[in-house]
Amino acid sequence: MKREELFKKISIENDRKMLLLVLDGLGGLPRDGRTELETARTPNLDLLAAESELGLSHPIAPGITPGSGPAHLSLFGYDPLKYEIGRGILEALGVGIEVNARSVAVRGNFATLENGRISDRRAGRIPTEKNRELVAFLGERIQKIEDVEVRLYSGEEHRFVLVLTGDGLDDRLTDADPEAVGLPVRYAEAKDDAAVRTARIVNRFIDRLGAELAGQLPANTCLLRGFARYPVIPSMNDLFRLKAAAIAVYPMYKGLARLVGMDVLATGRSIQDQVATLQQQYADYDFFFVHVKKTDSWGEDGDFARKVEVIEEFDRWLPAILELTPDVLVVTGDHSTPALMKGHSWHPSPVLLKSPFQRRMPARAEMVDAFACGTPDGADGQACGKVTVNALADKFGETACARGVLGNFNAMDVLPLMMANALKFKKFGA
Amino acid sequence: MKREELFKKISIENDRKMLLLVLDGLGGLPRDGRTELETARTPNLDLLAAESELGLSHPIAPGITPGSGPAHLSLFGYDPLKYEIGRGILEALGVGIEVNARSVAVRGNFATLENGRISDRRAGRIPTEKNRELVAFLGERIQKIEDVEVRLYSGEEHRFVLVLTGDGLDDRLTDADPEAVGLPVRYAEAKDDAAVRTARIVNRFIDRLGAELAGQLPANTCLLRGFARYPVIPSMNDLFRLKAAAIAVYPMYKGLARLVGMDVLATGRSIQDQVATLQQQYADYDFFFVHVKKTDSWGEDGDFARKVEVIEEFDRWLPAILELTPDVLVVTGDHSTPALMKGHSWHPSPVLLKSPFQRRMPARAEMVDAFACGTPDGADGQACGKVTVNALADKFGETACARGVLGNFNAMDVLPLMMANALKFKKFGA
Repeated sequence: MKREELFKKISIENDRKMLLLVLDGLGGLPRDGRTELETARTPNLDLLAAESELGLSHPIAPGITPGSGPAHLSLFGYDPLKYEIGRGILEALGVGIEVNARSVAVRGNFATLENGRISDRRAGRIPTEKNRELVAFLGERIQKIEDVEVRLYSGEEHRFVLVLTGDGLDDRLTDADPEAVGLPVRYAEAKDDAAVRTARIVNRFIDRLGAELAGQLPANTCLLRGFARYPVIPSMNDLFRLKAAAIAVYPMYKGLARLVGMDVLATGRSIQDQVATLQQQYADYDFFFVHVKKTDSWGEDGDFARKVEVIEEFDRWLPAILELTPDVLVVTGDHSTPALMKGHSWHPSPVLLKSPFQRRMPARAEMVDAFACGTPDGADGQACGKVTVNALADKFGETACARGVLGNFNAMDVLPLMMANALKFKKFGA
Repeated sequence: MKREELFKKISIENDRKMLLLVLDGLGGLPRDGRTELETARTPNLDLLAAESELGLSHPIAPGITPGSGPAHLSLFGYDPLKYEIGRGILEALGVGIEVNARSVAVRGNFATLENGRISDRRAGRIPTEKNRELVAFLGERIQKIEDVEVRLYSGEEHRFVLVLTGDGLDDRLTDADPEAVGLPVRYAEAKDDAAVRTARIVNRFIDRLGAELAGQLPANTCLLRGFARYPVIPSMNDLFRLKAAAIAVYPMYKGLARLVGMDVLATGRSIQDQVATLQQQYADYDFFFVHVKKTDSWGEDGDFARKVEVIEEFDRWLPAILELTPDVLVVTGDHSTPALMKGHSWHPSPVLLKSPFQRRMPARAEMVDAFACGTPDGADGQACGKVTVNALADKFGETACARGVLGNFNAMDVLPLMMANALKFKKFGA
């Protein structure tokens, strides 16, 4: 029996509520002996950690640095190596473009064609405003090719996203990109017979765009890279019988949540707004994914201090979340984004799991819980011995998580562990 | 190379002895800060733990609560998702019915048919004694259908097990159970062409039973659920070249041991009896599986104190086992059965592995090895402070195992670890 069949077989519905709180890029690397999370003053998280199961989770596998797509799929309980989200689709999700199971999306560049050769692969990095004009112009003129709907969306500078929507589209196409200047326009080629029609439509689009933009130097042709079909992924309701909702601000995370069948709730942009949304809709779902973005953004910028601040801001809102008394609560990251590395990394993410059925590890301070002096401290004026416990051992952070009862595990197992702790899994086998 | 191919390729025979001591449902959850195992006074296990490798093992995967079948397969080194043991076969094993590779077994209910409709799916829960009468009566009258041997076994009240044994039987059948009262008898249907003949035989059995019991209200028909073929599993000798024996009291565990080719040794019912059997037959095998059932039984009953008592009883017999000086010894559970949950759970099982080649973790007391006194010890005659380490850190239990050198791992790896420590695995690759 495969993993997903197992989940389908043993999942049951009940009224217990599960919260998955994701601080994007939470994990870090130490500066002066402490990571971002360990540097942050987080009294509420620390108290919670002392009463929770802790561990470290690998988003994909040890040593693998994930993008946001696979990292989130894993946290949602899916094998991220099984369901690949192609670049074009992720790009579309990232800017909030509506795509569906009939869509193929691809990233585009406006480019310059002179004397039948590509002379600039980025059309001189035209201003974004110019890009918007071109996309509006083209949008009026190219709406359908054969029976396929054509939509164009502006990105920054020379970038755009092309979405084709229709029956029987296929993404097994080579990039329509010569990959160097001085070469002619390159058309897409089908890598599989099933993609021949899609290749023809794509290539007709390239020709139509060229015809419409003839004379519009420097943007008079395009390159298309990363054709991707909307991946067909069983929903969280299919796999786990969950009624799941996402409270996320950024389009990509909303898109990823929609990909696995979550309802995406309207929310304001601050953590306070997100908590308010959670409170308002708490009765309506049994699983909530709350996504805090800024930890990752500041990590990517290499701004240790501001990443610390976002964690501290989250900590201030934790009591309001705990007041909802969720049955199972997880606080974690989708991956690490150490400020010292200015980017995603492979380091496993701290995980805190709170449940009525947990096996808490005694905190470090309890482990070294007492020691007798020869005479009671101060009774005869003599100094008494003193054990110094490393403060990190009892704080929510990478150090404490590395010693936690959950050990090191795969992020794919976060959701199954939540399901178990919410008593939403039946016994497997007799 | 697949896992089982690897084992076959690298396993070698030698004279080293391995003991796998399974306390069923050993793992627990804390009451007043200590689990059942941590509450038990187990001086012998604690001493052994201080000289062993410790860890926690997941029977199937994180979050998955296993039944006894898959949990034991995993401990025997098999992938429990690869070899499923169907309900009917497990039921047959559970009551000690002989089944073999030509058998299909299914659970049955005596039921009541009135005016062509099922009016009671349990025949008014007839007394077990009445059940025995009916089964004896039917056993004389229905012994063969076509060339297939038919055997019936009484369970409690209205329950029985039907075993069909013959060539080419197939278990891909729908349940012969309308699943509600007020409906007519439902016949089994083949879900695959290969099962058509088995369906016909099953349905002829239903008709024959009905004819024989006509007028025997309230038990005049039957329902059949969970058709299962005896699973074909490579033996432990095939995979690991082991001569393996089981010392178990309860039929299901004897059956599971037989399923993987172990010899099942005759033994008395107490732990003392089981140890005596081990001593007597110690020369004859290189692997022993000793199964203690009552830890699980009391856990299922929610009786924390009596589960503790069984663990303490086992501890008293441990020295007699150690006197045999096995080369590799594992003490573990097949899964957790926390008394607080009154049932199996997903929590990983404590594992203790003793071998001459182990990497022991320093006991906690050694880790907290220094502390400053106000003045050096004895320099001015004053007593120095003394560190008391929380007793759980050095006791065999979930807390110590969570910090053990083996970490969190899958129970499928217990047997490979034993093989390695017994030097029964060759190097893989050059």
